[in-house]
Amino acid sequence: SSYQGALTLKMKLELARVVRGTGRLGVLRGLGRTAQHSLEVPGCLLYTHLGAVPHLTQDTLHTLSSLPSVTQVTLAEHQEVLEEFKDGFRKFAGLHDTLLYCSLHDSAAPCPTGYTTNKTVSVWGSGGRIELTVAKFMALQKAVQPDWYQSMADGETWQNNTSRKRVRKSVDRTLAHLDECLLAHQNSQVKNTRVGVVEGGDIPEERVRSARETAKRPVAGFCLDGLQTGSMDQALRTQLIAAVTKELPEEKPRSVLLGVGRPDEVLACVEVGVDLFESFFPFQVTERGCALCFSFNISLDPEDTAGETQHNGDVSLDDQTRMTSFEMNLKDKRYHDDFRPLVEGCGCYCCKNHQRAYLHHLLVTNELLAGVLLTIHNTAHYQGFFSALREAVAGDKLDILRRRVLRERKE
Amino acid sequence: SSYQGALTLKMKLELARVVRGTGRLGVLRGLGRTAQHSLEVPGCLLYTHLGAVPHLTQDTLHTLSSLPSVTQVTLAEHQEVLEEFKDGFRKFAGLHDTLLYCSLHDSAAPCPTGYTTNKTVSVWGSGGRIELTVAKFMALQKAVQPDWYQSMADGETWQNNTSRKRVRKSVDRTLAHLDECLLAHQNSQVKNTRVGVVEGGDIPEERVRSARETAKRPVAGFCLDGLQTGSMDQALRTQLIAAVTKELPEEKPRSVLLGVGRPDEVLACVEVGVDLFESFFPFQVTERGCALCFSFNISLDPEDTAGETQHNGDVSLDDQTRMTSFEMNLKDKRYHDDFRPLVEGCGCYCCKNHQRAYLHHLLVTNELLAGVLLTIHNTAHYQGFFSALREAVAGDKLDILRRRVLRERKE
Repeated sequence: SSYQGALTLKMKLELARVVRGTGRLGVLRGLGRTAQHSLEVPGCLLYTHLGAVPHLTQDTLHTLSSLPSVTQVTLAEHQEVLEEFKDGFRKFAGLHDTLLYCSLHDSAAPCPTGYTTNKTVSVWGSGGRIELTVAKFMALQKAVQPDWYQSMADGETWQNNTSRKRVRKSVDRTLAHLDECLLAHQNSQVKNTRVGVVEGGDIPEERVRSARETAKRPVAGFCLDGLQTGSMDQALRTQLIAAVTKELPEEKPRSVLLGVGRPDEVLACVEVGVDLFESFFPFQVTERGCALCFSFNISLDPEDTAGETQHNGDVSLDDQTRMTSFEMNLKDKRYHDDFRPLVEGCGCYCCKNHQRAYLHHLLVTNELLAGVLLTIHNTAHYQGFFSALREAVAGDKLDILRRRVLRERKE
Repeated sequence: SSYQGALTLKMKLELARVVRGTGRLGVLRGLGRTAQHSLEVPGCLLYTHLGAVPHLTQDTLHTLSSLPSVTQVTLAEHQEVLEEFKDGFRKFAGLHDTLLYCSLHDSAAPCPTGYTTNKTVSVWGSGGRIELTVAKFMALQKAVQPDWYQSMADGETWQNNTSRKRVRKSVDRTLAHLDECLLAHQNSQVKNTRVGVVEGGDIPEERVRSARETAKRPVAGFCLDGLQTGSMDQALRTQLIAAVTKELPEEKPRSVLLGVGRPDEVLACVEVGVDLFESFFPFQVTERGCALCFSFNISLDPEDTAGETQHNGDVSLDDQTRMTSFEMNLKDKRYHDDFRPLVEGCGCYCCKNHQRAYLHHLLVTNELLAGVLLTIHNTAHYQGFFSALREAVAGDKLDILRRRVLRERKE
């Protein structure tokens, strides 16, 4: 295709294992300007809030092992200063060697609906709504200088009961935006790698149409949009994803980024062929003063229930801000004299140096260090889960992992 | 004296230089359980908010050079859990090798007056007021296990226009508390080093009486209380401190901790013989989104005014939370496209890696990383000022330093 940029060609997804119903295992190679980066799949991008990992300096961040090589950013409100700075967001933010993936919306901040037109979409930053045309969107990409960017899309059909007409319009608009992005791309100096966005709400035929049409365009990968928690139940989501991934070329990565991050959801998506996720979930857990504590050790005897089963709360499908069963609420009084690490055996800085009782005290006294320590633990824990996930796909042990992850739930 | 504990004897202030009106220079040696620590004077303690350095892990903290060897804590609300933990606060908080100095009040949180009785004083934590008797106070020290603790004191006479009768009562009560502490100390297993507190409000005769009487007791050092910003002007404060230090033995350290932290105040106190301070000031500067930027480089040509003179705000004597002329307000729009480091030539992690424009963006978008980066810079800058201060005392250059620090003020 004449659209195809030189750099896109360097990127290659090497799949080591693809078994329908048990996920895809592989490595995305040749990423970045000099093709020096790679990313294992299933994997996740490093979540940032407006370009910064909450609470952590780059140096502290890089003390974590197995960090994703791709950082996800949403930067519409930085456009002006980045245009003046000229050297792109990576340098502006003093980021260490990383790939940048530019998303449209922040996963941890749900965006209101009703602001999309045929020619514009709206995104929300700390200063309120910013309306983007394709021209403004492409100027933003030029200022941010990401390695990947997600094409502009009308994603307002994630809510239940969106009409078929509205869903159809969202698919059409998203394809039109993509075509306009590709055209602008061709005519501009921006040589980033673009990701096509698959819409279609909860209507299988529209999902399939969106996937087929997007796959015809020269995109480097696919982002399945509008599947966030609260919009549909997991069975329907899985069915829609399966219908979509069947239409997509095997050699290009598929991501489900916006609003899907709980380990049970990630597992279900991986089983139907999704490769990439965002890591906004550990950030949300941190913000509510909780610590991830679910088990993902598949080498343990699956019958072993000697581990902790004291998790509180319940999996809530309709509220992303509510506590889940994968975490412990460290503000709870029960932890005030619990002198164990957050997770026994965890190798993170927080668990190696501090006990639950100390975290409890930091939280109840509103100490700012709590957020730092929880970010370190929750990020490490979530990355550990993704390592276990790849190991499980490789060893055909997704079932064991699912039972391990969900063991505290009565089913 | 029969009060004197074995460990107190190990501590020794070696004074290299004492010139009335130009400060004392020396090293406090033999600190800590195994006498392995030392602390240069003039110097400052590491401020913590309820035992945690805001925003920083111990590992990040220890990437800073020339960190004080003494950490200041106020921990009344941790008493219960520390009694259960048994191994002291240093271990509870996972602190690196440091001395602990236990203060009564948090310098960055002014405490209401009107809650002192003959037998009790009140302290304020995040959960509200905690009333302490000497017995409860000594039990707290036993649980915290600090290396130094400040004796219980009635410090409610810092406000202007406190009556002579009330000031006299505060001196009497504070001496009575000290005697009770010493007695309890003698009868308990607590072998910490106690610091006597000098009260006396703004009445010179009461200051002198408090100093003389405290100096008769077996204390390891003296803390001059009730001199905080807003309570009196600097000339009166200097006069009171001079009257007090004349009464104190040369070989024991004198501190002015609560509420005195601005560089001009520190300079004035050092000139009349004060050795130790707290570092709550850089924390307050961080909390208001500002960066310390005053110059303390005494090797520069004193006539050189090529440096930055764009500081805003003014020195406010009556509000600790208001911005001072020693800092820059990074939220100000002028910094949105300022791609310089906070302070040219500063070697801290923040200045080496980030520009003012990035800090501005973190602050206006409420990014949590802003507090981390500002804490790193402001702590490093304040420690740098204390290094320069010692250098100035050593080289008889306090005048040059004062002019350097205050150069942006019209006088």
